[in-house]
Amino acid sequence: MKLALPLRNTSEELMRLTLTALPNIPLIQRGDDLVEIILRGLDDARIELQDNDVLVLAQKIVSKAEGRMVRLCDVTPSPRALELAQQSGKDARLCEVILWDTREILRVRAGLIIVETKHGWVCANAGIDRSNVAPHDENEWVLRLPEDADQSARALRERMRALTQRDVGIIINDSHGRAWRNGAVGVAIGVAGIPAVEDLRGKPDLFGYPLQVTTVGLADQIASAASLLQGQANEGRPIVHVRGVPMTRREGCAREIVRAKEYDLFR
Amino acid sequence: MKLALPLRNTSEELMRLTLTALPNIPLIQRGDDLVEIILRGLDDARIELQDNDVLVLAQKIVSKAEGRMVRLCDVTPSPRALELAQQSGKDARLCEVILWDTREILRVRAGLIIVETKHGWVCANAGIDRSNVAPHDENEWVLRLPEDADQSARALRERMRALTQRDVGIIINDSHGRAWRNGAVGVAIGVAGIPAVEDLRGKPDLFGYPLQVTTVGLADQIASAASLLQGQANEGRPIVHVRGVPMTRREGCAREIVRAKEYDLFR
Repeated sequence: MKLALPLRNTSEELMRLTLTALPNIPLIQRGDDLVEIILRGLDDARIELQDNDVLVLAQKIVSKAEGRMVRLCDVTPSPRALELAQQSGKDARLCEVILWDTREILRVRAGLIIVETKHGWVCANAGIDRSNVAPHDENEWVLRLPEDADQSARALRERMRALTQRDVGIIINDSHGRAWRNGAVGVAIGVAGIPAVEDLRGKPDLFGYPLQVTTVGLADQIASAASLLQGQANEGRPIVHVRGVPMTRREGCAREIVRAKEYDLFR
Repeated sequence: MKLALPLRNTSEELMRLTLTALPNIPLIQRGDDLVEIILRGLDDARIELQDNDVLVLAQKIVSKAEGRMVRLCDVTPSPRALELAQQSGKDARLCEVILWDTREILRVRAGLIIVETKHGWVCANAGIDRSNVAPHDENEWVLRLPEDADQSARALRERMRALTQRDVGIIINDSHGRAWRNGAVGVAIGVAGIPAVEDLRGKPDLFGYPLQVTTVGLADQIASAASLLQGQANEGRPIVHVRGVPMTRREGCAREIVRAKEYDLFR
């Protein structure tokens, strides 16, 4: 029966992708050396790092290590923030911090502010997070995205290479809501050492006909895969090791993912 | 040094997610028994199926097995299709097939038609594919989405249970472009046996503070992860076995993912 089928790929090696949430990751403090923490986590998981492995870090721990926490009681809302607070029903000081990181406000409804951030991401609250930032009795703290998450990713990659001589890919991921579809998914906001978007234009399909899908969100797909293990209360498992991603490596950066406004039909 | 850190989760088991592209999957024909083909692929990959495993199937093979191919030379474009062809520059017969599966046309530009399908998906060309459908000299064939991919997923799950006594999750995935972000990503269009969207409302974060992200696109994240192995010329590796997804199982269906029009601010 099996031989009668038109088999293909019989010489293909088994393609396998393995993701591991690194154990024992401590609560991250400003100034922490994330690469040292990753190396201890890999050690605890008994993973020996290899070239082409990818490490996915939750935005939250990168922001914390970079000291991007803001105490709301230290923030004085501007008139624009007061207006946004009235429109959205959100804390005016939080609105002020959202405005710091906003290029353009796209939609405001009760309980909802969707903006384009200065980095180019379209997301709720400019990616500013209130959950998982600090213990309950200090919940006046909020956390901004890294100033430049691509730069953060590059620095992590360089330091990892310096300490281990391994050339890995780095993704900093966050959870974003989407148009049209329910449920937030992991997305890449910082990338180093791998293509963020793969360009397949001109590649043939199985029959030599041009492929219909021409660019693939590689880093976003890895970010989503890692997010499955991180969960949402994700400082518990904020770092995921990924092995086996089929890709042609190049420098890469998350900026590739930002769709230019003039090519975006849904804003 | 390690003991001085505020360790948590020390009793946590290592969380690992493993995805395997099943080898030796033949070109699928109308009427093929996909469950038999999955079982041979698992056997070739030396994977023994377990409860809670998830199998991700590319939409293309499900559509082919269900006979959803259409030969363009058999299609007569309606006046509306002729108009859409003129606006988009696409083949009028292809436009006619797109209209068959369209509930609402959202955007039309040169080379681009974005619709809401009858199933509720916002995507290009109503998900109708020209690549990978048939050899080059017969490229008049196009492939429609399954009539009801949730029903297809349920049927696959039931038949898998009948043949193996294993209770697995099934996802039928496709690649969709997105608002705001470059690069298509894998998404779920049919789901059975797992939650498509996880509802975390009311769940506490690490510090007992309510989580900011309240619903998670679980099935879409699994679909994206599988897509990393499938590639785009994906009839070569159209079936991916997934083990280790942390989730609370329930019946589930992809319809959960469709955002109701009145809650969608970006249409």
